Amino acid sequence: MQVKRIYNGADALCSTLLANGIDVCFTNPGTSEMHFVAALDREEDMRCVLGTFEGVVTGAADGYARMAGKPAATLLHLGPGLANGLANLHNARRAGTPIVNVVGDHATYHLPYDAPLTSDIESLARPMSAAVRRVRDAGDVSLATAEAIEASRQNGGQIATLILPADAAWDPAPETIHRAATPTPTVNMEAVQLVAKALRNGKRSLIVAGGKALMDDELKLCSSISHATGARLLAEGAITRMERGQGRVKTDRIPYAVDLALEKLAEVEQLILVDSTAPVAFFAYPEKPSRLTAPDCEILSLARPGDDIAGALAALSDALGAKAAAPTLATLVDRPELPKEGFDASTIMRAVATLLPEGAIVCDEAITAGRLNFALMAGSAQHDYLQLTGGAIGIGIPMATGAAVASPDRKVVALQADGSGMYTMQGLWTQARENLDVLTIIFANRKYAILYNELRMMGVETPGHNARRMLDLDSPAFDWVSMGKAAGVESARADNLATFIDLFRAGLSKRGPFLIEAWL
Amino acid sequence: MQVKRIYNGADALCSTLLANGIDVCFTNPGTSEMHFVAALDREEDMRCVLGTFEGVVTGAADGYARMAGKPAATLLHLGPGLANGLANLHNARRAGTPIVNVVGDHATYHLPYDAPLTSDIESLARPMSAAVRRVRDAGDVSLATAEAIEASRQNGGQIATLILPADAAWDPAPETIHRAATPTPTVNMEAVQLVAKALRNGKRSLIVAGGKALMDDELKLCSSISHATGARLLAEGAITRMERGQGRVKTDRIPYAVDLALEKLAEVEQLILVDSTAPVAFFAYPEKPSRLTAPDCEILSLARPGDDIAGALAALSDALGAKAAAPTLATLVDRPELPKEGFDASTIMRAVATLLPEGAIVCDEAITAGRLNFALMAGSAQHDYLQLTGGAIGIGIPMATGAAVASPDRKVVALQADGSGMYTMQGLWTQARENLDVLTIIFANRKYAILYNELRMMGVETPGHNARRMLDLDSPAFDWVSMGKAAGVESARADNLATFIDLFRAGLSKRGPFLIEAWL
Repeated sequence: MQVKRIYNGADALCSTLLANGIDVCFTNPGTSEMHFVAALDREEDMRCVLGTFEGVVTGAADGYARMAGKPAATLLHLGPGLANGLANLHNARRAGTPIVNVVGDHATYHLPYDAPLTSDIESLARPMSAAVRRVRDAGDVSLATAEAIEASRQNGGQIATLILPADAAWDPAPETIHRAATPTPTVNMEAVQLVAKALRNGKRSLIVAGGKALMDDELKLCSSISHATGARLLAEGAITRMERGQGRVKTDRIPYAVDLALEKLAEVEQLILVDSTAPVAFFAYPEKPSRLTAPDCEILSLARPGDDIAGALAALSDALGAKAAAPTLATLVDRPELPKEGFDASTIMRAVATLLPEGAIVCDEAITAGRLNFALMAGSAQHDYLQLTGGAIGIGIPMATGAAVASPDRKVVALQADGSGMYTMQGLWTQARENLDVLTIIFANRKYAILYNELRMMGVETPGHNARRMLDLDSPAFDWVSMGKAAGVESARADNLATFIDLFRAGLSKRGPFLIEAWL
Repeated sequence: MQVKRIYNGADALCSTLLANGIDVCFTNPGTSEMHFVAALDREEDMRCVLGTFEGVVTGAADGYARMAGKPAATLLHLGPGLANGLANLHNARRAGTPIVNVVGDHATYHLPYDAPLTSDIESLARPMSAAVRRVRDAGDVSLATAEAIEASRQNGGQIATLILPADAAWDPAPETIHRAATPTPTVNMEAVQLVAKALRNGKRSLIVAGGKALMDDELKLCSSISHATGARLLAEGAITRMERGQGRVKTDRIPYAVDLALEKLAEVEQLILVDSTAPVAFFAYPEKPSRLTAPDCEILSLARPGDDIAGALAALSDALGAKAAAPTLATLVDRPELPKEGFDASTIMRAVATLLPEGAIVCDEAITAGRLNFALMAGSAQHDYLQLTGGAIGIGIPMATGAAVASPDRKVVALQADGSGMYTMQGLWTQARENLDVLTIIFANRKYAILYNELRMMGVETPGHNARRMLDLDSPAFDWVSMGKAAGVESARADNLATFIDLFRAGLSKRGPFLIEAWL
């Protein structure tokens, strides 16, 4: 029996996404989304990628959009499905990633009955969304979708949550398809003049580049300006996407550790922000300041998220006559030698930095194991570097998954701490399902090492039974090789350097997901 | 070097929990909670159970409190840590489970700097919490904690979220410890009289027992009243905890499937609710009603959550002279024979029902595979039955984990669908870490079978490529035996009945976690 088809709200959603260039949907649908599932099923141009947990769905959408430079759609199941995806939406929000976040809800008339899955979706969505819009009815779907797409493109990239009641999906809809406007970024010339003037006033200045200022051309402008004016240049501490490697700008980033950061920024008298925010401590500590720069440090913003970053930098360069100053570029000399002995996180990072192939996408959630890799990889082959931005652990595996969907011709190398990896390890299954070219390295130290550091900073030298029960991941040690096997990802353990290098080379030489558990 | 210790807000929290009988804390802490971790470390009487993902933490707290009959504490890491735990807090809210949900936050003075992990915790917490309270300062900790404990005990059990800023934890605190009042449940005699009168008016009546009315003694009163009056008796559709098996009341529950439920409730003229709510459809469907009873059905409530349920039933029984009517009890005859052939979900459920040991705790998140088990297990050895209550999948493994912490001398049997199990499979590691006596059966059908049903109900007979990519869990099939091994849980696969029965008996005969993947 062929059911007679009427164009409905779900079709309108699907068509509006496609008409506006959104053709990937990361999803874990449920009963209330089945009409949208049926609509997606009729649209061959839409690629649907299943995550078996919503943290994978939203983290993959983040990784995808960072590399694709356009929004992904998600499809989540009511309040609890959204809730499961919120931690990685938090990271995406901090990354300035555009995401059209579709959340199904009960039919409008069903809500007053408070059925078991009913919850306040707006309240859940708002903290992580720049825009939250509930679709009124089927006739409203296309407009609401276009508005969500438009909102996702504002300010350089935002989360726009669209709540889709089941009846708005299943009721007949008009076939009008709305288009979403794309904002035209502008240069704030007043800011350019102010910053140009400030950079000539003789104060000790620091340029902090973030967001879109971390792309190759923009960073070269930053570096030239730095040389022309004597200002220092640093990348912001949590990096959405940075183009790095030989022939690209060599620069450090603001350290995570508060003492290191305070030391590094102590002398700064004026701060020039380029698509970034004034650096603050990740956490507060007794007797330590929140702001990482001195209290009397001047803070100026050249360009904000959503501005024309390249244009602002070019204008500043012109105003300062900085074109002649050559940027500091990394060369092969900056790349470490392949290590010959030792087997700790730093040795592994050195090996990765040396062997990293041209065009790789590095997804970094190595946490404590990763503190060193940024400096080590400055002179690697050209690559993109993507990082945990919002501090909500569990982005690494999903982000690598989404980046690989966006960039099928590039090798994704995921540097993954074990504790954080356990949050969203379901993403490995999606990598296997989609045969994504992701090489994951698990830094298995079998503890929340970062928290041991924190406890030490508090003066606790010998943690007792309860602390160890909360911070150790041993007894039993989680076995990532078996985990990879469970998810259908070829996996192997390295407990010495030679094995690691062999496995890493093997992983690079094949296409498809591969996991190395580096047993520290 | 020994650091000089000052009694601080974190100590006050810990002491207040212990003084009020809360001695288990399910946790995944972070930097902002390290002072509380240090305080817990000093309190040997507090048992800290680590979950390597917050959905495990909150789901385990739910399972624990359902069996312990008192609140568990949780400890979560800021907004994103809370967000990860919300889906199972949603289930706990629907279950009427008492939980003191402690969420760390940045130091008060750090919040205006909008550090990366900052988010609106109140907005996230409210949808799943009956009470949300931010601790003002260290001096407020004990009172705020006592208030949260008190709130968690209201209305039969609630989620009370307590937001603990880091400076409130680390600042010196007064050593006063506040006590939380325990509410005294009462009988609403007016309701008893109304219901007694209604049950004599000759209408076709249905008693729906939920919440605390599903314990052995209370259900026996329900059954007697049912016989004395001719009213039918059903358990509510989503069961927090029910005492079942031979010598206990044999009764059916309201079906999940809307058509079955409508059929079952069609003739009902008046509904008597005992610690339950009027049954509504889990989801809305075009042309189908939300309310499962007829529009003109009278709905009366004998007792609400938090009332004296046993007292209300005893009073009703007295008023009706129902004492003489014997309740319908299950006997050995109601237990199925051990199946001899076949290997599908229903066969496995029959084997489980037959072999279930005395005193088992059955945690049911078998979803489609589980629709039959309720009837089949009516005549099993006496056991407790705990179910997914809020429809947010991913409660099964965590709930079993928490139930086993609460009841170390009882065997926990977890009936787990594979799709739902993938949500919170990290809980297996906690079972291994704590050596919990949980026997998990994974019903591995390698698809979201429930959603295929829904698609069929919509008239989609042959799902296309995109639908299958969203609803199938094959290619690759998730391998639960490797997953168990990854988490340190002894695991084996059964692909035929004889092997399953052997493995199930083996699992029952040993102490500690064991997993059987039933390969359907």
